[in-house]
Amino acid sequence: MIYELYYWPEIQGRGEFVRLALEDAGAEYIDVARRRGGTSAMLKLLDDEKVKTPPFAPPFLKAGTVLIGQTANILLFLGSRHGLAPAGEAGRLWTHQLQLTIADFVVEIHDAHHPIASSLYYEDQRKEARRRTQDFLKSRAPKYLGYFERVLERSPGKYLVGRTATYADLSLFQVVAGLRYAFPRAMARLEKRHPRVVGVHDRVGERERIAAYLDSDRRIPFNQMGIFRHYQELDM
Amino acid sequence: MIYELYYWPEIQGRGEFVRLALEDAGAEYIDVARRRGGTSAMLKLLDDEKVKTPPFAPPFLKAGTVLIGQTANILLFLGSRHGLAPAGEAGRLWTHQLQLTIADFVVEIHDAHHPIASSLYYEDQRKEARRRTQDFLKSRAPKYLGYFERVLERSPGKYLVGRTATYADLSLFQVVAGLRYAFPRAMARLEKRHPRVVGVHDRVGERERIAAYLDSDRRIPFNQMGIFRHYQELDM
Repeated sequence: MIYELYYWPEIQGRGEFVRLALEDAGAEYIDVARRRGGTSAMLKLLDDEKVKTPPFAPPFLKAGTVLIGQTANILLFLGSRHGLAPAGEAGRLWTHQLQLTIADFVVEIHDAHHPIASSLYYEDQRKEARRRTQDFLKSRAPKYLGYFERVLERSPGKYLVGRTATYADLSLFQVVAGLRYAFPRAMARLEKRHPRVVGVHDRVGERERIAAYLDSDRRIPFNQMGIFRHYQELDM
Repeated sequence: MIYELYYWPEIQGRGEFVRLALEDAGAEYIDVARRRGGTSAMLKLLDDEKVKTPPFAPPFLKAGTVLIGQTANILLFLGSRHGLAPAGEAGRLWTHQLQLTIADFVVEIHDAHHPIASSLYYEDQRKEARRRTQDFLKSRAPKYLGYFERVLERSPGKYLVGRTATYADLSLFQVVAGLRYAFPRAMARLEKRHPRVVGVHDRVGERERIAAYLDSDRRIPFNQMGIFRHYQELDM
């Protein structure tokens, strides 16, 4: 089966967590809005009244006749299909729990530069973004990174759940890479206190299929439209 | 087995989505911080270094030897145990997808009154809250409510997933009840355009165990510390 991934073609965004899992699994997939039909193909499916299980927003994945939305939900599905999560119930729930905590972190990373409304330009909420980012870098980012560091300390292996990488490790890689792009100064400081988290980032980045993906034109570069954005004035 | 629910004892908060599922299932559970040991019992477990799968934050549920965190993840677990979600994979994922969309909505409801930092008082972000709530009531709340209305239009039954209630319906009940508390004026306006969503609220509230629960002292009243808060100046 060839998966169809639907996501905005110009950004990594939330779609990137799915792309990383598909790439690491060596799964066949079409990045529909980038390779076939563009954004309009995506919006057409999103607005199709015949779809009985409509997604709220991209990303969504078509797997045969099933249409799955919500990033963490897509990963829950892919994890069990492609060995990117433990097979047992407890391990499967634990991996998903970590992913949902990463999802919470991602919302806070995004809202640091858009605290008032996604629909407004950054320039229209610059003052508020500065206030929110101050709290984010001082309290929230250390709280999340400290949490994942603690999880890794207690893990029986070098990955979050154990000795093999799960989709949650791939997502943690993406978060570290994104934070480095958005906040190079602050992250240089934060990384010192979270060596295990950085270790996961490095090991994931060296996985054969991930390394090949990062090197390819399928990997969209970070830019100022996604979740992770670099505004020098916010990198305190 | 008797479940142990760990959540802040003074608020409904995110714990309420779990309480509703436990109550509707008729499951035996102890609301630990309210009934046995208080908040300190909860924090002790949260900080316990022997816990191999530490939660990031409350709520978390102890089910025998398993400790499960993240509201939507707890519901995924309870849903399959207590018939609060379809048994098949596609239906299970669809229900979870709806729950994750409700979770996104809940973050936006909370951040409407706390757009800068959870750690600051409302009074310290009042101006920003007014700006964010304006966008929330004008764009975001209608977008989410419109989405669930659309899902109900396409559902083969009167509930989100079909003819029987799932944990996602219980959560939608809670969101409508909370929005009515927080924004009585705005909701009176919004409800007119979302009759199916209101219908789910009403039907869930009439379920025997839910009605008994709402009538009991186990249901904490809405208050100004939770996700849903009523500030008259925000109810535009």
